[in-house]
Amino acid sequence: MTRRAVALLSGGMDSAVAAAWARREEEYALVTLAVDYGQRHRAELAASQAISDWLGADEHVVLGIDLRPVGGSALTSDAEVPKGETAQGIPSTYVPARNTILLSLALGLAETRAAEGIVIGVNRIDYSGYPDCRPEFLAAFQQVADLGTRAGVSGGAPRLLAPLVDHSKRAIVELGLRWGVPFDRTVSCYDATSDGRACGLCDACRLRRDGFVAAGVPDPTRYA
Amino acid sequence: MTRRAVALLSGGMDSAVAAAWARREEEYALVTLAVDYGQRHRAELAASQAISDWLGADEHVVLGIDLRPVGGSALTSDAEVPKGETAQGIPSTYVPARNTILLSLALGLAETRAAEGIVIGVNRIDYSGYPDCRPEFLAAFQQVADLGTRAGVSGGAPRLLAPLVDHSKRAIVELGLRWGVPFDRTVSCYDATSDGRACGLCDACRLRRDGFVAAGVPDPTRYA
Repeated sequence: MTRRAVALLSGGMDSAVAAAWARREEEYALVTLAVDYGQRHRAELAASQAISDWLGADEHVVLGIDLRPVGGSALTSDAEVPKGETAQGIPSTYVPARNTILLSLALGLAETRAAEGIVIGVNRIDYSGYPDCRPEFLAAFQQVADLGTRAGVSGGAPRLLAPLVDHSKRAIVELGLRWGVPFDRTVSCYDATSDGRACGLCDACRLRRDGFVAAGVPDPTRYA
Repeated sequence: MTRRAVALLSGGMDSAVAAAWARREEEYALVTLAVDYGQRHRAELAASQAISDWLGADEHVVLGIDLRPVGGSALTSDAEVPKGETAQGIPSTYVPARNTILLSLALGLAETRAAEGIVIGVNRIDYSGYPDCRPEFLAAFQQVADLGTRAGVSGGAPRLLAPLVDHSKRAIVELGLRWGVPFDRTVSCYDATSDGRACGLCDACRLRRDGFVAAGVPDPTRYA
């Protein structure tokens, strides 16, 4: 029987590579999930759809939730996205409880689709400032899934799969190339134009570009 | 300094009493949170607003998220809400990952409002069929809050407060009376009319009515 997983797609490079791992390496059938949470960079939703199509997902689900009333992040407010040097500590682009919210939605979807896995493209190396990208956070969320779901009660809660959690951006680029991930269709930038061109200056752009440089391959990112 | 808590309000009796405990007994300043997740019984959103007003909350936040694409519950679909005998096991009104989703949204809000507590009105006695109402589930979510938030990193993640978790419906009614909770403005029914009148037949109605009978006080519920 085919195993199924819900793959969170942000439209960026990491989640695309994580989902490609699940599809190509682990042969999961995929239900992809994009969350429209009022983010500034709307181009990422179009990128999520394109990646889902490329993956050949069985279904692409878009859930809309407007987190702007929550506030507290440069990504959902009119506050400026920082450009220049990579910030120390927790960046202003941190969205409060973001991965907890994304994983909880993926968990609900995984339950109704009888999925055995939830794929998330977090990695702690480059984004060490985000507390909800750490393995210990993921382990805690696994406990929530085990105890808080119908499937968990019968011993089969979906497993969190974070294949990139210890990878560098360079390794992520290399894995993506191996599986043919269409990097030109992904949008990593925190401040992309509406048609998905990247600013080249924010943290996400800098980390992504460094990854391509380190891997020694051309960067297909379209810059504004 | 005033302590602040985010209180989840469903519009029902239990969350109103839990929030009243936080306000009256613990003297938290409150930010109330209602989540519009596409539930059938829209009257509960109006009830949440009324309860928030009664509590004198500093702020009432409504977050809209349409969970209907997730499916899997009689509360977000056109499937019939069961009437009659209280069901055994996990009921069809279970919303997949519901409390995980609600708590994750409350967690994000608590972060941006610098709240020390998150109040949730779950209780396991009457709703033993819902896995995400159990103390062990709440303990697991506390770990998520501790590890996945900015406040948690600095040692001060919001604490989950579930004052009713071990209470009977009778005890909840009695506590509500002590604090003057306007029960007539709460809507517990899974299948209420648009103006908040209860069906009297679903599990939630039966449990609520039994609570008033056991407490020996008049039931102010308006029935359809």
